[in-house]
Amino acid sequence: MALIVQKYGGSSVADAEAVKRVAQRIVAQKKAGYDVVVVVSAMGDTTDELLDLAEQVSPLPPGRELDMLLTAGERISMALVAMAIGNLGYEARSFTGSQAGVITTSLHGNAKIIDVTPGRIKDALAEGAICIVAGFQGVSQDSKDITTLGRGGSDTTAVALAAALNADVCEIYTDVDGVFTADPRIVPSARRIPKISYEEMLEMAASGAKILHLRCVEYARRYGIPLHVRSSFNQKPGTWVVSEVEETEGMEQPIISGVAHDRSEAKITVVGVPDRVGEAAAIFKALADAEINVDMIVQNVSAASTSRTDISFTLPSDSGQSALAALKKIQDKVGFESLLYNDRIGKVSLIGAGMRSYPGVTARFFDAVARQGINIDMISTSEIRISIVVEQDDVDAAVAAAHSEFQLDADQVEAVVYGGTGR
Amino acid sequence: MALIVQKYGGSSVADAEAVKRVAQRIVAQKKAGYDVVVVVSAMGDTTDELLDLAEQVSPLPPGRELDMLLTAGERISMALVAMAIGNLGYEARSFTGSQAGVITTSLHGNAKIIDVTPGRIKDALAEGAICIVAGFQGVSQDSKDITTLGRGGSDTTAVALAAALNADVCEIYTDVDGVFTADPRIVPSARRIPKISYEEMLEMAASGAKILHLRCVEYARRYGIPLHVRSSFNQKPGTWVVSEVEETEGMEQPIISGVAHDRSEAKITVVGVPDRVGEAAAIFKALADAEINVDMIVQNVSAASTSRTDISFTLPSDSGQSALAALKKIQDKVGFESLLYNDRIGKVSLIGAGMRSYPGVTARFFDAVARQGINIDMISTSEIRISIVVEQDDVDAAVAAAHSEFQLDADQVEAVVYGGTGR
Repeated sequence: MALIVQKYGGSSVADAEAVKRVAQRIVAQKKAGYDVVVVVSAMGDTTDELLDLAEQVSPLPPGRELDMLLTAGERISMALVAMAIGNLGYEARSFTGSQAGVITTSLHGNAKIIDVTPGRIKDALAEGAICIVAGFQGVSQDSKDITTLGRGGSDTTAVALAAALNADVCEIYTDVDGVFTADPRIVPSARRIPKISYEEMLEMAASGAKILHLRCVEYARRYGIPLHVRSSFNQKPGTWVVSEVEETEGMEQPIISGVAHDRSEAKITVVGVPDRVGEAAAIFKALADAEINVDMIVQNVSAASTSRTDISFTLPSDSGQSALAALKKIQDKVGFESLLYNDRIGKVSLIGAGMRSYPGVTARFFDAVARQGINIDMISTSEIRISIVVEQDDVDAAVAAAHSEFQLDADQVEAVVYGGTGR
Repeated sequence: MALIVQKYGGSSVADAEAVKRVAQRIVAQKKAGYDVVVVVSAMGDTTDELLDLAEQVSPLPPGRELDMLLTAGERISMALVAMAIGNLGYEARSFTGSQAGVITTSLHGNAKIIDVTPGRIKDALAEGAICIVAGFQGVSQDSKDITTLGRGGSDTTAVALAAALNADVCEIYTDVDGVFTADPRIVPSARRIPKISYEEMLEMAASGAKILHLRCVEYARRYGIPLHVRSSFNQKPGTWVVSEVEETEGMEQPIISGVAHDRSEAKITVVGVPDRVGEAAAIFKALADAEINVDMIVQNVSAASTSRTDISFTLPSDSGQSALAALKKIQDKVGFESLLYNDRIGKVSLIGAGMRSYPGVTARFFDAVARQGINIDMISTSEIRISIVVEQDDVDAAVAAAHSEFQLDADQVEAVVYGGTGR
C-alpha cells in the first residue's frame, strides 16, 4: 500500500478548530487508500509560551531541561490530532520522537538525527492505524535523554521518517500556498512555483526563503523523497520539490525559478590583514572554533603599498557579538588592524537551474539592480545562484527589480509555459 | 547517605514564582546532606486546560491519547523545577515516569503501578544530581504506552519511588499545613494532627479527608514508608503518618484523631427484595460487574408479612446513573419492586485508634448528633471508625458537634497532651 508522510506546522494546528480540520485532511488520505504517518509541530504559540516560562525560572536553563520542557508542546498537539481522528471513526496512535525511533546526537537544542528505527510505527501501520508522530524531537543515542532538533526540526523529522519508511511522498503542510518566485509581501505579483528541483530549493532555503529548512531539503535529496509543500487551509496544488524537473513534460524550464532575500545577516570586515600565507585560515579557524556559520566571503586585492588586505564576510547577525569576540582574541597573533561591523545589510539571491545554459544572467541581474540606484556591496555565485549584498533598505527594491527583469511576475507569466501543476 | 523523596502538588508549582520557591526548599535539603528525589504534579490549572482542549476536539477521547496529552503537564513542571534548581547552582535532572521506571498496568486513566525500576534515578543520585520525576504517570508493561495513574497518582508515585529507593521519608507538600482534626472550613477551631497511624489515616482518606489519597497511604503502609504531610508555603511541622503512634513518648493517645466528612456519595435503596438466599449477592455482583465501588450497606430485617426486605447502599454519586442502569437490568431476575435514589446525603466519620479501648464512643457520638436535631440514616463501623449518613444539609452541624464532643477544638486542647511534633 502506498505510504504518505504528512507534516503539519504550528499554524496548521493552532487551536481546536484547526486540529479538527487537519484531522479531516488526514482521514481523507486514509479513505483514499493510503497508509498515513503524520508529523506535527507544537500548537501555534505553545513553544513561545514555554520559553517564556523557562525564562521566568532561569536566565540560562540547561539544554537537557529546556528540551524536556519544549517537547511537551508536540506531545499536546499530537494527542489532540489523534483524538480528533478517533472522533472521525479512524484509529490514530500518537508517538513521541523517542517512541517513533528518532535517534539523535546529544547536542541539546540542535541535535542531529543519527538513525530512525520506526518499528512501532510499522507495527501500528500494519494494524491499520494512522500514526501521529511528534516533530522536532528525538532521543540521544548515548544518554537516552530527550533532545530537540533545532530549527526546521519538524520538517526534518517528517523527511527522515519518510526515508526510513520508504514513503512515496512527504507532504509539508504550512500556512502559505507553496514556494513562490519571491516573498509575496514584497512582490505582490509573485507566483507559486509548481515544481522545483532539490538543488534550486536548497539554494532558495540557503538564501533566506523560509518555507523549507535547508536540513529538510538536504535530507529529502539524499534519500530521493519527493516533497510536496502546500497549504493546510485550502486544496491548492502547492509546490513539488523533486530530483529533476523534466523538460519533457511540455514544460519549458524558466531561466530563473525565484528570487530569495535574507535580512538576518550581518557583515564583518577584518581591516588590514597582513598579506601572508595562512592569515585568512587563522581567521576562519577562530570563527569555526566558536561554531559560527560564515556565509559569503570577499577578500580584496591587497594594496601593493601596504601588503595588507581587507577580508569581509557575512554571518547570521545573532552570531555577531561572539564572532567579534572570537576575532579580537586573535587580533595580536594575526596582526590585523581593526574590525568593522554592519548589521544593516540584506542579501538578494537569484536562483535557477536555467542560468546554467543562459549566459548573461549575472549582467542582467546587476543591471536591473543598478537601474534602481542600488549599490552592490558583495557578490557570491554558485552554478545555479547569484547572491548580492545591499543596504538593508534596498532589499525590497532589488527583489522587485530582479523579479520583473526575469519575467517572474504573474502578468508576465504567459511568456513562460509551465507543465502540469502536480505529479 | 539519607534519601528524602519529596512530592509537590499542583498548587505548590502553580507559577514561576512558586517553582522558584520549591527549588529553594529542595536545595535546602540537598545542602543539609540528603540525597533528594522530587515528584511533581502538573502546574496549577494545566490539567484542566488540557482536558478542556481535549473536549473541544473530541467528546470521548481514547484513553491512550488522553494519557499522552495529560502527561505533558508534568513534563512542563518537572523541567521548570529542574531549571530553577540549576539556577541555584545545583544539578537537577528531570525524568518522565517511563524514564524513572514506573511500570504500570495498561488501564489508561487509572493504571496501577506493577513495579518501579529506578535504575536511571539511582545513577543520577550516585552522580550527585537531584532527581525530578513526573508524578501521576508511567509506562504500561505490555504495550509500552504512556499511562496515567488516576486520582492520587502523584502521591502514589512518590511513595512507590520512596519504597523502591528505600528512602528514609516521603514528604508530601501541599497547600495546607497538614492533616487536621476536621475540615477547618467547617470547624474553624480544628487543629493540626502532629502524628497519626497509617490505619487511622486510611480511614480518614476513605471517609472523605482529601489531603492524602487512599492508594498512597496503603502503599506507604505496605512498605513502611513514613509520610510527612506539610505545606510548601511555610515551615510549619505538618503531620507525620507512621506505623505506630507510640504512647511512650509522653504522649497520651487521644480517643479520637479526627472527624472526616464526605458529600460526594449517593444512596440507592433496592425496595422489596425477595428474602431468598443469593438475592443480595446477585445485586452486588451486578454492581461489581459494572465496576461500581459500593461503600456502606444496610439491609433491613424483612417484614414477616411480606417476606421481602429493603437493601440500601452508598456509592460515589458520579456512579449513580450506571448503578441504576445495572440494577434495572436484573430487576426481573431478582424480582425486587423498585429503586430509590438520593444524592442529597452526606457521610460523617469519627476516626481514632483510641476508640478500641474506650467503650461508649458510639453512644457519645450519636448523642451529640441527636442533640443538634439531626437524624441518622445509616451507620457503619470498623474497629477504629464510626460513620453515619445524614441529610447533606446537616453535615456541617454533625461534624462540629462530634468535633466538640470529643474535645478536638483548639480551645480544648490543653486537655490532651501531645508528644513531639515530629521525629
